[in-house]
Amino acid sequence: VATVPVSGKKLVLKVDMLVGSTDVPRGMTFRQAARKAVAMCVSDFAAKGVKPDSYMASVGVSRGVRSRQVNELALGLKDASEEWDVRLVGGDTNEASELIIDCVMLGFAKRVVGREGAKPGDRVVTTGSFGYPPAGLKILMEGARTASAFRRIAVKSVLMPNPNLRLGLALAGFWTSSMDSSDGLARSLHTLAKTSGVGMEVRTLPIGEGVEEFAKANGLPSKNLVLAGGEEYLIVGTMNASSFCEANRVAKRSGGRILEIGRVNNRRGEVTLHTRDLAEPVEDAGWVHLR
Amino acid sequence: VATVPVSGKKLVLKVDMLVGSTDVPRGMTFRQAARKAVAMCVSDFAAKGVKPDSYMASVGVSRGVRSRQVNELALGLKDASEEWDVRLVGGDTNEASELIIDCVMLGFAKRVVGREGAKPGDRVVTTGSFGYPPAGLKILMEGARTASAFRRIAVKSVLMPNPNLRLGLALAGFWTSSMDSSDGLARSLHTLAKTSGVGMEVRTLPIGEGVEEFAKANGLPSKNLVLAGGEEYLIVGTMNASSFCEANRVAKRSGGRILEIGRVNNRRGEVTLHTRDLAEPVEDAGWVHLR
Repeated sequence: VATVPVSGKKLVLKVDMLVGSTDVPRGMTFRQAARKAVAMCVSDFAAKGVKPDSYMASVGVSRGVRSRQVNELALGLKDASEEWDVRLVGGDTNEASELIIDCVMLGFAKRVVGREGAKPGDRVVTTGSFGYPPAGLKILMEGARTASAFRRIAVKSVLMPNPNLRLGLALAGFWTSSMDSSDGLARSLHTLAKTSGVGMEVRTLPIGEGVEEFAKANGLPSKNLVLAGGEEYLIVGTMNASSFCEANRVAKRSGGRILEIGRVNNRRGEVTLHTRDLAEPVEDAGWVHLR
Repeated sequence: VATVPVSGKKLVLKVDMLVGSTDVPRGMTFRQAARKAVAMCVSDFAAKGVKPDSYMASVGVSRGVRSRQVNELALGLKDASEEWDVRLVGGDTNEASELIIDCVMLGFAKRVVGREGAKPGDRVVTTGSFGYPPAGLKILMEGARTASAFRRIAVKSVLMPNPNLRLGLALAGFWTSSMDSSDGLARSLHTLAKTSGVGMEVRTLPIGEGVEEFAKANGLPSKNLVLAGGEEYLIVGTMNASSFCEANRVAKRSGGRILEIGRVNNRRGEVTLHTRDLAEPVEDAGWVHLR
């Protein structure tokens, strides 16, 4: 996010571009795509603990697109506006060779949680478990096999991403550093480690229920689904050890939860995964787009 | 532009998407394209009389684009930042199937000139003469014939569009209604007429020097180049008859000029062109993109 000072507060701005060929998987409707474009920005505001005020949508559609589909885009923006209580204040429509929805979101804040405040000894915390969206993508794009209950959850996590803004706002005061996990857990941990000049050791992999079974059934390493997936609209951050219990209570009161997955150490820029007595480096593998 | 109230002022926002296939003609470099994306927003701020504070650029580039070209985009943004004294505060880079530069510009203002204030009797005013960019496009895209001095001016108007921000800020207090002319003079006049619920009669077509000759040499109606062209980064607006002289002085002092091209009448939504004793309707012909 970018910030611009404005009379004692900060104007907080985020722009995120949804591109048809890389961000809209098979099976996603225009309505869902428009909602997702807004969700991508909301996710950042949730991680930064800033209430979004309003947004603009700059849209590009290809020639063949019918007015019914343009209406669907408008409905998707309306869904998002209602869901996260943000006002659409402007926009722009263009002809482009593929679907483009550039969302610009803004809010005002006294304080914006940064990426540079993690200290050795802090707890590494996430707002949920990982692996559903990458599994959902494998199901949608490659027809991966799965039980129908898991399929529903995994596919929904892709088509209707659900950044928990209420939880993000409730947790704002607790983080020493935080960011969203739209490029995957490993990438988020590496970014926080680098920016704060610390190391991150993961001791409990936050693996979603059913992800292990899905991975096995499809011959995939579950660790990769959890660490190197993407499109995960959760918050990854660090907090002082003494804050965790209170943060946990606050999270529960707002209908969410937090998970302690490890600790911050002083090994500058290193991210490691500790299982039993083994410690292995976690690759800085970001989310690879659809193409 | 969109506005959001913020402690006694208005936050003014504009988003405009530059799309490679429709906004970047043959002969335009990446550097010029990036500068143009910012110019498109600056043009709106000039028309609204608002000083832009900062901007963000959300960029999509296709796979084949080299790092040298990405550097060129950065140089073009730098050109724009310096030229119009606006800070680049953030952005986003993505892979897309063609060049996309979505520019989000913001500023703060007490008052923003609207489109709805034109009153019968007002003067219809532009900040320059029209026809160079459509001629330049004909030269670049279709190899239209022309004298070399005109060619230089016309092509430059396309590759290095030059919204006059200083003039726009100087004139802010004079307009009863205004907008920029990026979709062409006719479209601007129709929009102002409709929004203000008045009619616009054009008595002096603001035709650029050499445009008539260019039109003749290429068998084109010069009227169309002036009215139904586009990519014209001038201001079209209305002002009280009594303000014109003072506005003209102010314009000259800021190194620009204004032209009175006609009057506002009470024929709701009608735009007419008056030559000698003939009055003909002006079609609401907007700018047709490159494709």
